[in-house]
Amino acid sequence: MAHTEGVPPDLSLADAVTIGDVRAAAARLAGVARRTPVMTSRSLDGAVGASVFVKCENLQRVGAFKFRGAYNALSRLDPDARRRGVLTYSSGNHAQAVALAASLLGIPAVIVMPDNAPRVKLAATRAYLAGAPAGSEVVLYDPAATVREELGGGLAAARGLEVVPPYDHPAVIAGQGTAALELFEEVGELDALFVCCGGGGLLSGCAVAAKAVCPACRVIGVEPELADDATRSFRDGVLRTARNPPTIADGARTPYLGRYTFAIVRTLVDGMMTVSEREIVGAMGLLMERLRLVVEPTGALATAGAIRAAREGSLRASRVGVVISGGNVDLAELSGLLRGA
Amino acid sequence: MAHTEGVPPDLSLADAVTIGDVRAAAARLAGVARRTPVMTSRSLDGAVGASVFVKCENLQRVGAFKFRGAYNALSRLDPDARRRGVLTYSSGNHAQAVALAASLLGIPAVIVMPDNAPRVKLAATRAYLAGAPAGSEVVLYDPAATVREELGGGLAAARGLEVVPPYDHPAVIAGQGTAALELFEEVGELDALFVCCGGGGLLSGCAVAAKAVCPACRVIGVEPELADDATRSFRDGVLRTARNPPTIADGARTPYLGRYTFAIVRTLVDGMMTVSEREIVGAMGLLMERLRLVVEPTGALATAGAIRAAREGSLRASRVGVVISGGNVDLAELSGLLRGA
Repeated sequence: MAHTEGVPPDLSLADAVTIGDVRAAAARLAGVARRTPVMTSRSLDGAVGASVFVKCENLQRVGAFKFRGAYNALSRLDPDARRRGVLTYSSGNHAQAVALAASLLGIPAVIVMPDNAPRVKLAATRAYLAGAPAGSEVVLYDPAATVREELGGGLAAARGLEVVPPYDHPAVIAGQGTAALELFEEVGELDALFVCCGGGGLLSGCAVAAKAVCPACRVIGVEPELADDATRSFRDGVLRTARNPPTIADGARTPYLGRYTFAIVRTLVDGMMTVSEREIVGAMGLLMERLRLVVEPTGALATAGAIRAAREGSLRASRVGVVISGGNVDLAELSGLLRGA
Repeated sequence: MAHTEGVPPDLSLADAVTIGDVRAAAARLAGVARRTPVMTSRSLDGAVGASVFVKCENLQRVGAFKFRGAYNALSRLDPDARRRGVLTYSSGNHAQAVALAASLLGIPAVIVMPDNAPRVKLAATRAYLAGAPAGSEVVLYDPAATVREELGGGLAAARGLEVVPPYDHPAVIAGQGTAALELFEEVGELDALFVCCGGGGLLSGCAVAAKAVCPACRVIGVEPELADDATRSFRDGVLRTARNPPTIADGARTPYLGRYTFAIVRTLVDGMMTVSEREIVGAMGLLMERLRLVVEPTGALATAGAIRAAREGSLRASRVGVVISGGNVDLAELSGLLRGA
């Protein structure tokens, strides 16, 4: 079955990631990933009308939860695959995550990036890759002329590289789930957990963890209104897409859920919701001013969702978890967003 | 001996705070203050040429280390003094710290603040004070017409309140020292520790802790060039002052070291240095962009000092500690600073 607009999820894939996989990922990540802090704030509690526990993946290595999934996926490779190396395509945090994981594990990595990627992200990826074995490189492509999956697939086949996609991969999803697992280990039971949704890797992994360790916890995915493909897919029960959505939340610009993530989201997630661009910027400001955290727009989605749900009266919860996904935003962009707020 | 320009420190006061006092403060603060995270960053390591361990007191309750000293000082009061209450004068983070500590401990608190204090700080102080017992209030004064110490002293005498000054008090200093104690407990030995210096409470407390648990660690105080009174006092061996220095680091605008802090700084601190306003803003930007931390100007002083010392070649260290003092800065101010950077 092709993974295209209008098709239902293949629910047989929903079992591809278990709590055992998430726990195994947590064991691999111990001492390598940061056990990120959980923050609280009276202001945020007031805005949500509940005790809110904020899991700070913006303070994770490479500044985003992506390191968890990338490192877990790479560390599971057998010796032969490790020698040959890995390939990924990403213009964002996943590229840096794979580059750092490859460097730490001594695995060659090829990172396929668009030639219009921000210079700072390109430079950061190359800096992480400098510690990886020979054969590692950033391959640039013209996004107007090339489909990245085709270029990446061709390169991977020619060089015998294992493809580590940004989200639609069981080991990547299991790795991301460790963020929620740590949150529950630290704060105990929660009534609701808000997680942002781009391709659905973080949301899927966190849902697997939540439903296993705290089944009563409602798991809510949050998207920008301008990139609501997963919300529509969830509601309609068939895949919906959003091409190049103009949201400031660049991590949520992914056009659709993956095959695994659609199956898991549809099976384990309790609800999907959207927030406006203005609400995203408002949540960024609150997180900066009251929790002293620098958060990228995508990173503020879950907080914005919890605040909106509380305001609309749809949140009946006294203990709420929120996952901040990342904090990679450059100062000029940040300054511009704050000025506009 | 009066505490005025030109007088030497009373070195007999240097023993007023011992490592035992810092450890006792740590026991009082356990489970009340946050055990703030220690962050690392390759970019910062590169800028300093060493492994840098950043103690994040911007993530402390009330957004600053000040909570440690305030809570320690209040929790040491005997039942009778607790019933009568406390008084402090501060326009900054110490006011909020005393207000929150008073609320948590059920002690009435009077906070004397200038009537031109930022509305947001006044509102935050009143919000914390709302949980404190009857008799708690913010008393505003006209800074052009009133000396705050005189007003505060008069009020305290009339109402039988214990004065908890912002820095020059052994219990306050001991509380602040727990920040460094936690840092050493978490990361082990350090070759150098950089700490910002306003009135010297944090620097003194951290020096007491450092010299006890890691005697070989050099402790360096950092001030703005525009507010270099402690640097000159340290160098000259007699008290120097700086009235209303025009630095953006508002926490370092205190006019002089205190009696206790001058004695401790002169006895235990290894060096004092200054940084420019531009270096402060540069360090704020690095901490925001690479460590995803919102830091107020004063909070970036120590980081700026470590970077400057490394660039000047005066830092011979492979393991460096840096204490971020606080993160209370409003978004408009932050946006303005970033634009100017």
